[in-house]
Amino acid sequence: MPKISQKGTELPQSAIRKLVPFADAAKERGIKIYHLNIGQPDIETPKGALETLSKTKINVLEYSHSAGIMSYRKKLCEYYKRNNIDVTPDQIIVTTGGSEALQMAFTVCLNPGDEIIIPEPYYTNYNTFAKLCDAKIVTIPSDIKSGFALPPIEDFEKAITPRTRAIMICNPNNPTGYLYSKEELLKVASLVKKHDLFLFADEVYREFCYDGHEHFSVLNLEGCENNVVLFDSVSKRYSACGARVGCMITRNTEVYSIAMRLAQARLSPPSFGQIFGEAAIDTPQEYFDKVQAEYIARRNVVVEGINKIPGCFCPNPKGAFYTVIELPIDDSDRFCQWLLTDFNYNGETVMLAPATGFYVDPERGRHQARITYCICIEDLKKAIKCLEEALKVYPGRK
Amino acid sequence: MPKISQKGTELPQSAIRKLVPFADAAKERGIKIYHLNIGQPDIETPKGALETLSKTKINVLEYSHSAGIMSYRKKLCEYYKRNNIDVTPDQIIVTTGGSEALQMAFTVCLNPGDEIIIPEPYYTNYNTFAKLCDAKIVTIPSDIKSGFALPPIEDFEKAITPRTRAIMICNPNNPTGYLYSKEELLKVASLVKKHDLFLFADEVYREFCYDGHEHFSVLNLEGCENNVVLFDSVSKRYSACGARVGCMITRNTEVYSIAMRLAQARLSPPSFGQIFGEAAIDTPQEYFDKVQAEYIARRNVVVEGINKIPGCFCPNPKGAFYTVIELPIDDSDRFCQWLLTDFNYNGETVMLAPATGFYVDPERGRHQARITYCICIEDLKKAIKCLEEALKVYPGRK
Repeated sequence: MPKISQKGTELPQSAIRKLVPFADAAKERGIKIYHLNIGQPDIETPKGALETLSKTKINVLEYSHSAGIMSYRKKLCEYYKRNNIDVTPDQIIVTTGGSEALQMAFTVCLNPGDEIIIPEPYYTNYNTFAKLCDAKIVTIPSDIKSGFALPPIEDFEKAITPRTRAIMICNPNNPTGYLYSKEELLKVASLVKKHDLFLFADEVYREFCYDGHEHFSVLNLEGCENNVVLFDSVSKRYSACGARVGCMITRNTEVYSIAMRLAQARLSPPSFGQIFGEAAIDTPQEYFDKVQAEYIARRNVVVEGINKIPGCFCPNPKGAFYTVIELPIDDSDRFCQWLLTDFNYNGETVMLAPATGFYVDPERGRHQARITYCICIEDLKKAIKCLEEALKVYPGRK
Repeated sequence: MPKISQKGTELPQSAIRKLVPFADAAKERGIKIYHLNIGQPDIETPKGALETLSKTKINVLEYSHSAGIMSYRKKLCEYYKRNNIDVTPDQIIVTTGGSEALQMAFTVCLNPGDEIIIPEPYYTNYNTFAKLCDAKIVTIPSDIKSGFALPPIEDFEKAITPRTRAIMICNPNNPTGYLYSKEELLKVASLVKKHDLFLFADEVYREFCYDGHEHFSVLNLEGCENNVVLFDSVSKRYSACGARVGCMITRNTEVYSIAMRLAQARLSPPSFGQIFGEAAIDTPQEYFDKVQAEYIARRNVVVEGINKIPGCFCPNPKGAFYTVIELPIDDSDRFCQWLLTDFNYNGETVMLAPATGFYVDPERGRHQARITYCICIEDLKKAIKCLEEALKVYPGRK
């Protein structure tokens, strides 16, 4: 039997994935699980955009341009313009989800052994994409007490080595829900310029900013035109994760032209999803207002509910639909598994993502878990009740 | 300005891509171009499958399972069963086109420096995917006189080194249109087993076999269960290149489970395309019969037409919609460019793919070009007429 590659053996598996068999077994035993572990919104996809796709007359479903359908890229420019971001169609490569944008940028920008600095905790899947190009993720710990605000810029500077090639920011943040301010991003910008680094930014939650806070895009950082590579996606914006349509945006013409070679080798991004994505840009503002109101209400339920549980702490996130909470437990991997294998409250339990998966050193996430609020308020309340009851009887309670 | 990666600078650009600006300029001068250079079929996509997608009620366009929607994978098993291939849903990973299947398999199976043996000429984009994992493509020349039949198996054996990790076969073949026989594949199978190699197979043109010849799948090679990794796609089968839906199939459980880690990191394949793909499996046989009759007629026009031109030779391909022809010219890159920059026949010209791009050593393709027959017969005849007239006046004619 031929052997798989060394890299294959080293591909990481996330802490959440390891829990899936236990969740399946719990379901088989008839336990109802409230999923606070996944970032799959339950919000309805805009009907108008789905209808446009349905009505589009297609004779031959052709490859699109490798950078994406031109009319879609032009429409994307309109979308960004409305968000005070100036881009042109030849700065956009439409990708298969935000994931492909990330993969392209990493391949084009990172040498084996290069280091990417990321505030921690961070989105687990970055690990796989970094591993694919043998780059190393170096983290700067952020603090739950500040709601996971940007760590002191001096901490970033201290971490810079001759192998540092990029700083990466997810804003609003998955997994913390933190919304970086313009002031914080300006500090990152000056560091990036000073050390001639790439600034990778994942802004797929741009629309999900709460309490009157506004999103500031890295594309508006002056003097960083050649540093910034942006990842975006329709997945969360229009609750359309299955469309698999995102984009990579950069004004760095060298990065763009080399990324196009990758884009051409894989031929084109999905056409149906692009047609949907183009139509979705005309989704009326009421849709987003309603979605935002719903997420704010859910966030309030989570923050209030968790903070009422003795020994728990939940920051008040200003964006996305995630929060990382502190729990009075010995070990979050053990606790999250125990919730599925040994616990139920009136036949129900809750599934959380152990925060160990969001840290380079799992130790730092031992007493934390990520909660998503992608289920309705009624269920959220029941899920929090389960968590409260579980903590009363969990043997590893601190 | 931060530097791009070493790998980025080394990403290949295909010979066809280099011609695109010249084609654009010709169009701007009002020249009509017959495109014999691209593998984008003009055949209509099955209406039934498109209608099913249009009528599918979607409330939330969710991520699908990372291995693909289960009902689609089950339906795929039915499709393969009809083609005398036994597979189960847990041997299939639905991918974003055949390209992603290839990329996954290469990543999971190949170490840097590993060698993949491929009969030459071969599909250019394999170069990019090999480069991404620093693998080396080693080619065994096949001969235009035999229609690019499998080279003597001894030639493969001689090319095997301690770094050889895989043999790769595209059947029916892009760019040659050659259909490998069961007997030829059995020879490859014995070599693969003897040396414990992976057998990568690209069978995306399975339906395009002519003159009563039947396709034999590598999945039916006995004793190769752990060696075979198959790449498939809906792109050509249903003239649906824009769907970006393919799959990777393997019975090697280790390869499968590690490929799943990649699949999970990129979340899921496109949902719209999967819904379309599932419906397309019910496309009535008449559709394929009609398509096959059309391609056979076109192939006949090409083979007859090209062989009538003095100094040209075209084999009689038994599959796909490609053929590689011999031309009485000094240099196919120069000739194909000249066709766009310096030639027209009554305001029309023809675009071919220089065969230099299909060989590791471009020299071997200097007097050859790939022709696709993805345009209607009337246009094909005009295109061949252009080629005939061009060869009368081309300054580099041999």
